[in-house]
Amino acid sequence: MVEPVDIGGLTELKARYQRNLFDSVIPFWERHSLDRKYGGQFTCLNRQGEIFDTRKYVWMNGRAVWMFSRLYNTWEHRPEWLENARLILDFLLRHARDSEGRCYFSLTRDGEPAFFQRKPYSAFFLVLALTEFYKTGAGTNENLEQARTLANQVLSWIADSTPLGRPRLSGQTPLRQLADIMVIASMAMELMPFSVDPLYPELLRQCLRDVRAHWLPERRTLLENLPLDGSDYRQSPDTRLLCPGSAIEVAWFLLHALEGLEERDSETQTLLLDVIEGSLENGWDAEHGGLYYFLDSDGKPPLQLEASMKLWWPHTEALYALVLAYSLTGEAKWLKWLRKVDEYTFRTFTDAEFGEWFGYADRYGRLSHQLKGGPYKGFFHVPRSLLFCIQRLPG
Amino acid sequence: MVEPVDIGGLTELKARYQRNLFDSVIPFWERHSLDRKYGGQFTCLNRQGEIFDTRKYVWMNGRAVWMFSRLYNTWEHRPEWLENARLILDFLLRHARDSEGRCYFSLTRDGEPAFFQRKPYSAFFLVLALTEFYKTGAGTNENLEQARTLANQVLSWIADSTPLGRPRLSGQTPLRQLADIMVIASMAMELMPFSVDPLYPELLRQCLRDVRAHWLPERRTLLENLPLDGSDYRQSPDTRLLCPGSAIEVAWFLLHALEGLEERDSETQTLLLDVIEGSLENGWDAEHGGLYYFLDSDGKPPLQLEASMKLWWPHTEALYALVLAYSLTGEAKWLKWLRKVDEYTFRTFTDAEFGEWFGYADRYGRLSHQLKGGPYKGFFHVPRSLLFCIQRLPG
Repeated sequence: MVEPVDIGGLTELKARYQRNLFDSVIPFWERHSLDRKYGGQFTCLNRQGEIFDTRKYVWMNGRAVWMFSRLYNTWEHRPEWLENARLILDFLLRHARDSEGRCYFSLTRDGEPAFFQRKPYSAFFLVLALTEFYKTGAGTNENLEQARTLANQVLSWIADSTPLGRPRLSGQTPLRQLADIMVIASMAMELMPFSVDPLYPELLRQCLRDVRAHWLPERRTLLENLPLDGSDYRQSPDTRLLCPGSAIEVAWFLLHALEGLEERDSETQTLLLDVIEGSLENGWDAEHGGLYYFLDSDGKPPLQLEASMKLWWPHTEALYALVLAYSLTGEAKWLKWLRKVDEYTFRTFTDAEFGEWFGYADRYGRLSHQLKGGPYKGFFHVPRSLLFCIQRLPG
Repeated sequence: MVEPVDIGGLTELKARYQRNLFDSVIPFWERHSLDRKYGGQFTCLNRQGEIFDTRKYVWMNGRAVWMFSRLYNTWEHRPEWLENARLILDFLLRHARDSEGRCYFSLTRDGEPAFFQRKPYSAFFLVLALTEFYKTGAGTNENLEQARTLANQVLSWIADSTPLGRPRLSGQTPLRQLADIMVIASMAMELMPFSVDPLYPELLRQCLRDVRAHWLPERRTLLENLPLDGSDYRQSPDTRLLCPGSAIEVAWFLLHALEGLEERDSETQTLLLDVIEGSLENGWDAEHGGLYYFLDSDGKPPLQLEASMKLWWPHTEALYALVLAYSLTGEAKWLKWLRKVDEYTFRTFTDAEFGEWFGYADRYGRLSHQLKGGPYKGFFHVPRSLLFCIQRLPG
């Protein structure tokens, strides 16, 4: 009997990711985060999993519904995953929206509104939650209708945020954010399977066209915020902003969109692969390792105080982007980067003792926070990346 | 002739602060920040003083008017200081307010509104600008009326932020922030000299009563956000939040308020001195030096990513608070702290080569940003602290 060869150590990598996802990450959230009393999910958990803030964060709760549903839909029909998704989604449907469909940012433990952000993202994550839950077969047609309606509202708020309390000001440079592309493409990808409406594939194609305008050849990455009035991006720190993690996430996401459309577009595919490679080359800290959170494209001072910190999520996005790039091209250069990012990421962020990952390290890779979850870290980037890697890796 | 003895090295300290203020700090801002074409002040300046963002930030512009006017009023009648103040104030009066008197957060170079924050602080700094400018003798009675009207609006927005686009939500814990006390006390102190209205001294006395409720005996400091509904501050990261710099700033400010009221209240004075000492003892990083930006009162993870960074302004506030505490008490313990904070601060933040101070260092005291000014760092904390220190130090 011939033993299979483990090319590039990928079989071992896959086994390790599988152990981390199923023995460390998922159990941590199942054990500590679910609120069986009021529904919904706590995400502010310390290293050991103890709750340090009982508020429910709508971005995080929507993402967790998506993640549990996705595991159920594409890995295994474990009834507890479906029940977890339902526990959180029911809470969101009861409490997250105001009378005009706008979604709060945070809620008290029992669902009273605590904070409203002038942004469309809470609603966006509720769309993702509704659609992926619907795919489990446990959702209702009403859930799908809610998702479609809310998706249209999100599109309108991206075009004009006046209803969110942020009217356009005369001195405000009109921008397209990478997040807009991400949001629109995500919703279109989720809703496309349930509709013959040409709207969704057309939105995806529009995203694939729009992203090209963000390309910055000198840095081989994407501008985070593109000025839409023809002004020079070099004029403002907002438009000079680079976020390597965000560019990499958008790139792998749009590679999925190309697959979803079943269209050959090798020019765009090449561009997106270049974004992954260029963002790693430009965003990697040559001295201390890891991806910077923010950079200024001209090397001027970034406004964000946390710019040079190393966060877990740009690294999870890079891991999956590299696995995807390798699976699409078979080129060895991606494995070289994969080993480098994997080594840094697992060394810096995983926690063998209490499970799940830490989220925040300083420039030198030393943890600045011991938390496992917070208002912006939940059951999403880590399990999504690990699941997607496992599903793409050979063996 | 008997040479004067330099007790505790204070004469040398004072001379050094004076050199830093007049030879390094003020010239930097006079040389690089003023916009002679459109009026107003640029604050986003890199190490060398080059502009990296042409927007005008209303907090910063208001503070700079206050600072130039204060130098004029209390140090020397230099005509250029008055002209600088006027250049910036005229710009603010033309552009900073909307039709309902609310103030924008940022403006384009030529004064178009760029961003609106749902907070009263832009308006507050315009009140400070108007009152201190009025004291130069160059302001009009209309300026004083504008200040009074706007101060009343700020008070109303602190009580109810609905007109700023932030209505109270049912799940939102009602809080009093230290910033509220600071804002109310500052406005009252500025306006008191021009009015026989008992409102202003009454507001000051209210601030002196309110601050006592923020006292946290276990940490000998002030809670940044006090829950006003009787709930336990330990329940939420928002109410567990400590900001040593903010507590120290409020403490020295209220010591001024006690002086301004010309009242003997040794109990409150003792409390405020304890806040200064306790905030230093609790906020000082025993391992790497410097004051932490944020801490959680129970040692739980703070939500702010920048919590363990070392910022210039908590250190400028500590320097002046220590000088003030020493001048009020003559106790040697304050000089011990002063030497320690002074040594760390001058080593970490000053720039002998290009003038002014850096603003942002990581936990280890290494600069994370090379900027000299930004949306939140302008011509304010450094010169105010140095001027006040010089004016209080003996010799």
